[in-house]
Amino acid sequence: MIGGKRAVVLLSGGLDSATVLAIAQSENFDCYALSFAYGQRHDAELDAADRIAFKYGVIDHLTLNIELGRIGGSALTDMYMDIPQRQQQGIPTTYVPARNTVFLSYALGWAEVLEASDIFIGVNAIDYAGYPDCRPEYIAAFQTMARLATRMTVEGREIAIRTPLIHLSKAEIINRGHALGVDYSLTVSCYQADERGRACGVCDSCRLRKAGFDAANMSDPARYSSS
Amino acid sequence: MIGGKRAVVLLSGGLDSATVLAIAQSENFDCYALSFAYGQRHDAELDAADRIAFKYGVIDHLTLNIELGRIGGSALTDMYMDIPQRQQQGIPTTYVPARNTVFLSYALGWAEVLEASDIFIGVNAIDYAGYPDCRPEYIAAFQTMARLATRMTVEGREIAIRTPLIHLSKAEIINRGHALGVDYSLTVSCYQADERGRACGVCDSCRLRKAGFDAANMSDPARYSSS
Repeated sequence: MIGGKRAVVLLSGGLDSATVLAIAQSENFDCYALSFAYGQRHDAELDAADRIAFKYGVIDHLTLNIELGRIGGSALTDMYMDIPQRQQQGIPTTYVPARNTVFLSYALGWAEVLEASDIFIGVNAIDYAGYPDCRPEYIAAFQTMARLATRMTVEGREIAIRTPLIHLSKAEIINRGHALGVDYSLTVSCYQADERGRACGVCDSCRLRKAGFDAANMSDPARYSSS
Repeated sequence: MIGGKRAVVLLSGGLDSATVLAIAQSENFDCYALSFAYGQRHDAELDAADRIAFKYGVIDHLTLNIELGRIGGSALTDMYMDIPQRQQQGIPTTYVPARNTVFLSYALGWAEVLEASDIFIGVNAIDYAGYPDCRPEYIAAFQTMARLATRMTVEGREIAIRTPLIHLSKAEIINRGHALGVDYSLTVSCYQADERGRACGVCDSCRLRKAGFDAANMSDPARYSSS
């Protein structure tokens, strides 16, 4: 491998993953951003991912079309299911079955090809407590599996799954990103943003974001369709 | 859930996965076959998967286009790399980084949606000793991760990753399938089969298959371009 240490950074275009990319850059990784078109309603996120990757000057940005939505089971990919507008009990209908596992699996493959040592993902165990694949014990188990899955283990190298946001509140994430100079106007968090990237302001993800900016005593630079 | 017990069966169109499907059917599972177009050279395998799924009357057969080949790193997906024609030392160039992890991740998501209890995969630790993601310890680690990844654990259900071929020789696999009535003329194993499904007869996969039929004292009903 020629050059510095490499990281694959999962980049959705939302607030969390933009912050994670800034953190990876601050650790002097050569960053390779990975995004997915998986049938989600909010394609505006992918446009945001493009803008963020460009702004940060990542080495490469790969957006894969992966048809995950075809297996169904989520309000995020099924046009016949409603996006919930208030907190739900248990696992929310916006949960996409095995999404983080699929995303991390691709990241693992790309990391292997790139000989990257780290994979960054913006999972959060506080705001997304209802999502089983955002829990620390899940990430630990993925890392154990990942070490056995690839030629890296055979060759004595290691791969680290990095989750710098996992125990932070949304306000703490925003403060961290702010300190690193993240331009949150580039990000889109809404589950049902319109084609111009304007957020609905009422879905779970919008409410979490708004509450985070409020708690951080900052104004949210996102554009809302209602404002 | 209405109906019998369900299984997701990874179906490549090759000899191994056809045998696995027959085994799952013999255990009275309602089978949901899952195939992937991932940039592999051998699209003939996918035609074979269609024929096999139809012949077995699976409940559903989903072929997902997943762009795994775009991350590179394998002779199976990179037209500029040669398919090896003899056994290689170490990990063969036909190894696709994280392929089984990506495949199993999709299967996990579909199993969650279907409330399937079992995922069947035709990995083999003998013939594919060079592939890290064919080892029993890898499968065990994936299963541990899978239980934490999904709502199944939260709801107290379990998911089993089933690998009925993992310790069998190719001849034993063929004997097992023969006893179950598998029509191996439907299967395509070749890494570079032509558009009519004819095998090259010289790649690793063809040689393993031929040796297996020889050891089982059976003739291979596959069509070879050289014959």
